[in-house]
Amino acid sequence: MNEFLQVVTFGEALQLLRDNFPLRRSVYMPLAEAVGAVVASDIISPEALPAFDRSTVDGYAVNAADTYGSSESLPAFMAYAGEIAMGCEAGIVLTPGQCAWIPTGGMLPGGANAAVMVEYTEKLADDTVLIYRPVGPWENIMQTGEDVAGNQLIFSTGHRLRPQDIGLLASLGIQEVKVYDTFEVGVISTGNEIIPVAEQPSIGQVRDVNSLALAAALKLCGARVNNYPIIPDDFDRLQQAVDQALSENDVLLLSGGSSVGIKDMTLDVLLKYPEASLLFHGLAVKPGKPTLGVRIGKKLAIGLPGHPVSALMMFHITCAPLLRSEPSFWREGKLDINLASQPGRDDFIPVQLKEAAGGGLMVHPLLGKSGLMSILALADGYVHIGYQQQGLKAGEQVKVVLF
Amino acid sequence: MNEFLQVVTFGEALQLLRDNFPLRRSVYMPLAEAVGAVVASDIISPEALPAFDRSTVDGYAVNAADTYGSSESLPAFMAYAGEIAMGCEAGIVLTPGQCAWIPTGGMLPGGANAAVMVEYTEKLADDTVLIYRPVGPWENIMQTGEDVAGNQLIFSTGHRLRPQDIGLLASLGIQEVKVYDTFEVGVISTGNEIIPVAEQPSIGQVRDVNSLALAAALKLCGARVNNYPIIPDDFDRLQQAVDQALSENDVLLLSGGSSVGIKDMTLDVLLKYPEASLLFHGLAVKPGKPTLGVRIGKKLAIGLPGHPVSALMMFHITCAPLLRSEPSFWREGKLDINLASQPGRDDFIPVQLKEAAGGGLMVHPLLGKSGLMSILALADGYVHIGYQQQGLKAGEQVKVVLF
Repeated sequence: MNEFLQVVTFGEALQLLRDNFPLRRSVYMPLAEAVGAVVASDIISPEALPAFDRSTVDGYAVNAADTYGSSESLPAFMAYAGEIAMGCEAGIVLTPGQCAWIPTGGMLPGGANAAVMVEYTEKLADDTVLIYRPVGPWENIMQTGEDVAGNQLIFSTGHRLRPQDIGLLASLGIQEVKVYDTFEVGVISTGNEIIPVAEQPSIGQVRDVNSLALAAALKLCGARVNNYPIIPDDFDRLQQAVDQALSENDVLLLSGGSSVGIKDMTLDVLLKYPEASLLFHGLAVKPGKPTLGVRIGKKLAIGLPGHPVSALMMFHITCAPLLRSEPSFWREGKLDINLASQPGRDDFIPVQLKEAAGGGLMVHPLLGKSGLMSILALADGYVHIGYQQQGLKAGEQVKVVLF
Repeated sequence: MNEFLQVVTFGEALQLLRDNFPLRRSVYMPLAEAVGAVVASDIISPEALPAFDRSTVDGYAVNAADTYGSSESLPAFMAYAGEIAMGCEAGIVLTPGQCAWIPTGGMLPGGANAAVMVEYTEKLADDTVLIYRPVGPWENIMQTGEDVAGNQLIFSTGHRLRPQDIGLLASLGIQEVKVYDTFEVGVISTGNEIIPVAEQPSIGQVRDVNSLALAAALKLCGARVNNYPIIPDDFDRLQQAVDQALSENDVLLLSGGSSVGIKDMTLDVLLKYPEASLLFHGLAVKPGKPTLGVRIGKKLAIGLPGHPVSALMMFHITCAPLLRSEPSFWREGKLDINLASQPGRDDFIPVQLKEAAGGGLMVHPLLGKSGLMSILALADGYVHIGYQQQGLKAGEQVKVVLF
C-alpha cells in the first residue's frame, strides 16, 4: 500500500495548480457570440462616440444665448428654420434668432449649441416658436466623443464581457474581439466497481456519477468537456486512456484511483511520463485528502477522490476558481451552531442558508455522514474553516461560497 | 403626436408582465444536458441509495460486539475470513469472531454490522487480525436507503439543477428529466436612423446596438434568441416583421418606436391584432419611460426604448427577472454620496462597487448623462430608488443588484 507522497495544505495546492495551469489561448470571436468571454488584449476605441453632437431631448435646437432671460411670462420669440430629420445630416445652419425642430438623437445643426425641451416651447405659427425657459451652452446635447473618445482604452485584458459591454463595442463598430479560448477538459472515471448510469448495478457496483456531475460543473465554469469511457483498475488501459485524453485536452480530471488503496494506479500512470512533475499527492482537506496534481508538459492532470461528494467538493474548491473567469458568489450570515474542526486541515462544510427572524441570513451546517449525495443537493453553499482555525462558534458571522 | 396611453409604476408593470408572461413548456432532457435547467415536475427516487450497506472506510468488516473492550494494550484477536472486493457481492458471511478486509464503498458482508478503520488494526498473520479500538453498531457504515429512501421526493417543480443535483440523479440511475423549455425570444430594432453594426454610419445614423446587446442579455438569461433585420419607420414593413416574429417566438422585444414621437408606430402595429390587449404604455421609471407591454394571444410583445442604455436597463429590470430561473445576485454597501430622486417615479442608477477602507463595500453612483454607453460598461450593478422615496443619503446601506 502506498502512502500519500506529498501532502500539502489547501492554499498550497491552489497556488501550485495556479502556477502550473495551462496558458489560455486566445481566439478572435464575432461580437454576437462574445458575451461571457474574457478579453485577451486591451481594446482601444477606433472612433469617437458619439461621432457628432446630438440632442438628448425632443425639442428645438438653438443658440443658447438667444434664450437667455426667457420665462413663462416673457418667452423668447425665435424664427423657425425647419426640421432636423432622424438619420440624416442636419442640413441647416442656424443664424442668430433661429431655431430648428430636433428629435432625440438628432444631429445638432451648425450655429446651434443647445436644445430646448419641447415642453418649454410653443409653436406659434409656421415661422415662429416661443421659448419659455433659457438653456445654457451644451445643455441637452451630447457632444462628439463625450461618451468615448477616439483611441481610448475601453476594456483591459482580463475583463469579462457583459451585455452592456457588447453594446458599447457594437456602438463603436467593433465586430470581432480577441478573447481567451475556453479550456478543454477531459473527464475519466476509474474503478472496477463503476458502471454507466444507464446500467442497473449489481450488488457491489455503483453508477458513474462523477462523469456527469463533473461535466455539469465544468460546463458552468465555461469549459468544453470531453467525457471518456469508464476505465477499470488496469494499468495498461488507464495508460492508454490518459494518453488519449492528455493529447485532446488542456486539463484532465481523473476521479477514483487517487486514494491510498491496493488497486490505485492513477499516480503511477501519470508519473510514468518523462515530462511529468508531481505537484502534490494528498491534501490536508476534509473532504478530499486523496487529491493529486501532476503537471505533464503543458498539460495538467488532477486526480479527484472517487466518491462523488468529495470529488465535487474538491472540484469546487480547487478547479473551479482556476477555470472560471469570474469570482464565485458568496453571502454572509450567522452560524446557527458551533462547528468543530481539526487544526492542521482545511474543512469545507456544506451549509443551508435561511432567512433569519431578525433579518439577515442564518447559516445551517449540514453535518450528516460526508458520503451522503443528498447533503450536497440540499446545500446552498459551503463554509471554509482554515487549517489554522479550531472551529467556528454559533452566532459567528461567516462567509458562504454559493454553489 | 401620441401621448403615453397607460402609464404605470415599475411594480405594476412587473406584475402585469408576470401575469401575462407566456407559459413555460416542458421537455424531456438527457441528464447530461440538464445542468441549469429547471425541474418541471416533482422528481421521486426510483430506488434506495445506497442500495446495500456499504463501508465508508478502508478496514475490516466486523460484528461490533466482537470489538467491545478492545484497546491499544488489549487488542481483540479476530479470525481473518477473507477479502471483500470492490464491485462484487460480498460473498462472505461472518461468524462471531471473524472479520473481513473491506475497501471504502465495499459491500458489508452478512454477519457484520460495522467497519474498523485500517489505522486501528494490524494484520498479524494470514489468519489473524488485531483490532485496537471498539466500534459501535453501524459505525463507518452507510446503510441501505440512508442517503435517499425509495419513493422519496428529491426535487420539487421549480428547482434549478446544479452539478450536485445531476450527481444525485445519476446515482439513482435517472437518465432523463422533465424540465422547463427555455423561452424563444425575438429581437427587432426599429428606426430610420439605425444601421447594421458592420456599416459605417453617415452623420445622423447610429449602429444597431440593441440587437447585439439584447441578444447577449437574453443569452445570459438562458433564452434562445432570434434576431431579425432592422426595420425602418414604415408601418407595413414593421407589421410584416412583427407577424413573422410573433409566430416564431414566445416573447418579442422591439426597441425604438415606443417613444412619443412623430414616427412611432410600434404600438399601432401591435394593437392592430384583434387578440391584442394593452398592458401598459409608459412607465414611471428613469430611465425608460417609453416602455410598453402588449399581450397578443399567448405571446407577449415588449417595446423597449430605442436608446441602448435605456433599453438594456429596462430589459434588466422588467424582462430578466421573468426569463431567468434564478434570482439576481446582489450586494450590500454604503452610498458614498447623496442621491436625489423624484418622487412618483422609480429610479434605477448605475453604480460602481469599491472596497471600503474600513471593510465592507462602498457604492458609488455613476451620474453622467443618462445616454452614455460607457457608464453601463463601467457599472457593476444598479441601485433602485422606489417611487415613494425622495432619494438616498450618503452613508445609507443600499442593495446593489449586480449586472
